[in-house]
Amino acid sequence: MPFPPYWLRDNCPCTNCRDPRNGQKLFQITDLPDDLTITHHVTGDGQLEVEWSDGHRSNYPLEWLDEPQQPDHRTEQGKRLWQAADFAAGIPEAQWDAYLADPAEQAAVLRAVQRLGFAVLRAVPTVERQVLAVTETFGYVRETNYGELFDVRVEPDPNNLAFTSSAIAPHSDNPYRDPVPTLQLLHCLENAAVGGDSGLVDGFRAADLLRTEAPEDFALLTRTPVPFAFRDRHTELSADRPLIETDAVGRIREIRFNNRSIGTLRLPEAELDAFYAAYRRFAAITLRAELQLEFRLGPGDCLIFDNVRLLHARTAFEQDGRRHLQGCYADLDSLASTLAVLDRRLAALDTLQQLFEGEGAGEYLGEEVTMAEHMLQAGILAERAGAPDAQIAAALLHDVGHFQGAVTGRQLMTGTDNRHSDTGADWLAQWFGPEVTEPIRLHVAAKRYLCAVEPDYRASLSAASEYTLQVQGGPMTPDEAAAFAALPGAQDAVAVRRLDDQAKVADAQTPTFEHFRPLLAALLAR
Amino acid sequence: MPFPPYWLRDNCPCTNCRDPRNGQKLFQITDLPDDLTITHHVTGDGQLEVEWSDGHRSNYPLEWLDEPQQPDHRTEQGKRLWQAADFAAGIPEAQWDAYLADPAEQAAVLRAVQRLGFAVLRAVPTVERQVLAVTETFGYVRETNYGELFDVRVEPDPNNLAFTSSAIAPHSDNPYRDPVPTLQLLHCLENAAVGGDSGLVDGFRAADLLRTEAPEDFALLTRTPVPFAFRDRHTELSADRPLIETDAVGRIREIRFNNRSIGTLRLPEAELDAFYAAYRRFAAITLRAELQLEFRLGPGDCLIFDNVRLLHARTAFEQDGRRHLQGCYADLDSLASTLAVLDRRLAALDTLQQLFEGEGAGEYLGEEVTMAEHMLQAGILAERAGAPDAQIAAALLHDVGHFQGAVTGRQLMTGTDNRHSDTGADWLAQWFGPEVTEPIRLHVAAKRYLCAVEPDYRASLSAASEYTLQVQGGPMTPDEAAAFAALPGAQDAVAVRRLDDQAKVADAQTPTFEHFRPLLAALLAR
Repeated sequence: MPFPPYWLRDNCPCTNCRDPRNGQKLFQITDLPDDLTITHHVTGDGQLEVEWSDGHRSNYPLEWLDEPQQPDHRTEQGKRLWQAADFAAGIPEAQWDAYLADPAEQAAVLRAVQRLGFAVLRAVPTVERQVLAVTETFGYVRETNYGELFDVRVEPDPNNLAFTSSAIAPHSDNPYRDPVPTLQLLHCLENAAVGGDSGLVDGFRAADLLRTEAPEDFALLTRTPVPFAFRDRHTELSADRPLIETDAVGRIREIRFNNRSIGTLRLPEAELDAFYAAYRRFAAITLRAELQLEFRLGPGDCLIFDNVRLLHARTAFEQDGRRHLQGCYADLDSLASTLAVLDRRLAALDTLQQLFEGEGAGEYLGEEVTMAEHMLQAGILAERAGAPDAQIAAALLHDVGHFQGAVTGRQLMTGTDNRHSDTGADWLAQWFGPEVTEPIRLHVAAKRYLCAVEPDYRASLSAASEYTLQVQGGPMTPDEAAAFAALPGAQDAVAVRRLDDQAKVADAQTPTFEHFRPLLAALLAR
Repeated sequence: MPFPPYWLRDNCPCTNCRDPRNGQKLFQITDLPDDLTITHHVTGDGQLEVEWSDGHRSNYPLEWLDEPQQPDHRTEQGKRLWQAADFAAGIPEAQWDAYLADPAEQAAVLRAVQRLGFAVLRAVPTVERQVLAVTETFGYVRETNYGELFDVRVEPDPNNLAFTSSAIAPHSDNPYRDPVPTLQLLHCLENAAVGGDSGLVDGFRAADLLRTEAPEDFALLTRTPVPFAFRDRHTELSADRPLIETDAVGRIREIRFNNRSIGTLRLPEAELDAFYAAYRRFAAITLRAELQLEFRLGPGDCLIFDNVRLLHARTAFEQDGRRHLQGCYADLDSLASTLAVLDRRLAALDTLQQLFEGEGAGEYLGEEVTMAEHMLQAGILAERAGAPDAQIAAALLHDVGHFQGAVTGRQLMTGTDNRHSDTGADWLAQWFGPEVTEPIRLHVAAKRYLCAVEPDYRASLSAASEYTLQVQGGPMTPDEAAAFAALPGAQDAVAVRRLDDQAKVADAQTPTFEHFRPLLAALLAR
């Protein structure tokens, strides 16, 4: 038995041990007995079955047991380190409209920030406070002593070099905060100045070079807490953190680099000498020409960058040239979460599209159209009737349960109810809200309901539908019909049902699944 | 020369090297030459004077050179570790009204959170969203997937155990966030349930016990990244972080402890066995009776606690008993900044009070009242006249410059202008805004102005004031008077001047400095 018992038990996937909605464990590690052992185990049918000394039983999918460790996307392990020449063909960018409309475009931008450390959105409306709206597309604004947002322009009595026209060497912001804001956004409203260009340096790359060229200097910078500080009339921030932070297994995970904010390091003389030699070597690497990525932010450009990896810089500009950026801070964790959810939704759309193009393109149980044609017809009928988006989606997806359940549609046609409405609704509920799933859940009941309350309805059913009506329970009794009509979503289900019944026209012209992707994508995000 | 040259130069305090307003450095470490050496140095007059090979000169106060390193208040070094019995006499708490009114009371609460990890505010208004107002007294709300604030009460379809009536073992929140929110607030609006008591455990203390009892287990937990995760329809957060995080020199600085949110750790079998043994040992320590601090939050109580140090718990409660808390997250860095600024302000008030009670109690240059009596009279005259707070403060403090400058008030009386209005205004500007400092800066000019524009005014001056008028430049010319009248704050300065002239009554009854502390405290916070 190659699996440690407490590890195995802590990962028991049964519904007593884990909340199926969010995967959170329902027990404490201290709830497990001290002498826990495996009394019996057997492998078969793709599962490892385990009996425990306390009587509990667990089943583990074998493929879960073999899963590799996921890379840690907050460390260098999950990054692509770069130098300026890597962007000779252009920097990662997207148009604001496309970013908003297309989840694939949004995912590409967020993935660039996660993997490369930055991306630029173009044609973002040049209105004040718009940088907050950009942040809200993937996370939450982190307010600081500089405000919810800050204006980067020349100020008469600046409390920070940012608010002057001076050049600023590559640095990270707010190293005196702990936790330091991990993302920064800079939205250009105006840049008519001579000068004032932007620069970025990959701090992970610089640290990686230091580790290669001078491993002892690298190690010294990872283990020396540096006192960062900022002070004005209303603020007195300090944080003792290393310039290069590695994780518990030695991978680079954060860079703090800002000479302006380093207070007085107090160490024995020899250690100070060694620290300053290492610090100066690292600082010199950050200035190497091949690491300097330079570009110019114009009005409407919004730069999003990783403030615990990239160093940002600015060239000096003429003080009378107008230059105005608005910036704010945010955090990488929410960005990563948004990206993961977008990826999940894009995968859902791909899965649905494959259903329509694969299995769904086969015959539809006893009808003259394929399953895909039937569902596409239902969807476009809903769209042409001006139905709400959720009803269009419900019509389009109402029969996906035929593909999903343990009992297939084919078995339904041999007399076993496959409960495809429930199966489909449950499966879709991992991505869609009840406004889409509940009419699907009720669309079979709606047939039984309509047979009960509309005398002519039953006669309009197709032969296959009349057959399955019997398997599904026949027309409702008057009591059943009254109970059904009172359910939330019953009227939507009746509407979907009528579309279902009409959507069996052979050789009708329908759009492909692709046509519905934007609508489905929007519903996934609700 | 016992000081490393780059360290010494990096800390040059001259105004070319440092912004005197915020202490930020005005150069980059890479701006220093590669072959920097000290060409000459001499110690004397309390300073180390240094000449550098690049021609720069620096002066370092000897007492600065000898300063010790400041403790890092984010690590165990700056904490007082505790067990439950330490609070037998009561937990750290304050009344909300007193917390708002008295900076010393507010500082005591924030210091308790910083040093002990928690404090309770009592009689906080039981209105919704009030927890956000509490947070804004010391920092910024950290929004998460649970919202800007979250309601802790029984919910019909909970996405988290917090929103049920179940017991919850000691844990920290949001370990799947990176950066994790470092503070949590819980404001009790209603607690009529049987059960539903609160518990706290000092996670630093538990980790410290583990280090003593099983050093290898402690070390293992500090160097094993654990995959924390949370997932629902709109969220997919993950963070690989150790249960016990130490800083670069091995001090405990953060605890993450929440079995519910630990995903699957993937390590070689022997390492998993060792990890789970260490994890279970640490978990068992967190449950020791002597570490469990238990208390009950009643309506109006707001608990503020360190979410990267303390573990919080809740006993189960009867589902039909009404219990409603509102919570939110925030961060320790802003709390520490607010505390440091409060301490600075309290020290300023103490310094001013000492001036009034010490040096100020001596004779006032040539007048029949002491300096303190004169300023207290001016302050109370302003107060009785219904002057704005800033003008009362300016009247009270207008002559503090007599104590501060290199040229004393006594020298003024021997014919050297000590420019006490500028000296006082500059000194006070480290704490007060221009609404207080500028009338003080201009109050001597206001005398020269009034002599120019009001024929009777000069005759009303005291003999000493007539004498100093000459030292200070005599009456203004008409051009000077017009220029003065156009200055911002000129009218306030004239008002302060008139109070100054009236405040020389021997044996007048005036309140002590203590009377003005609340008004000054409020102005310091503006």
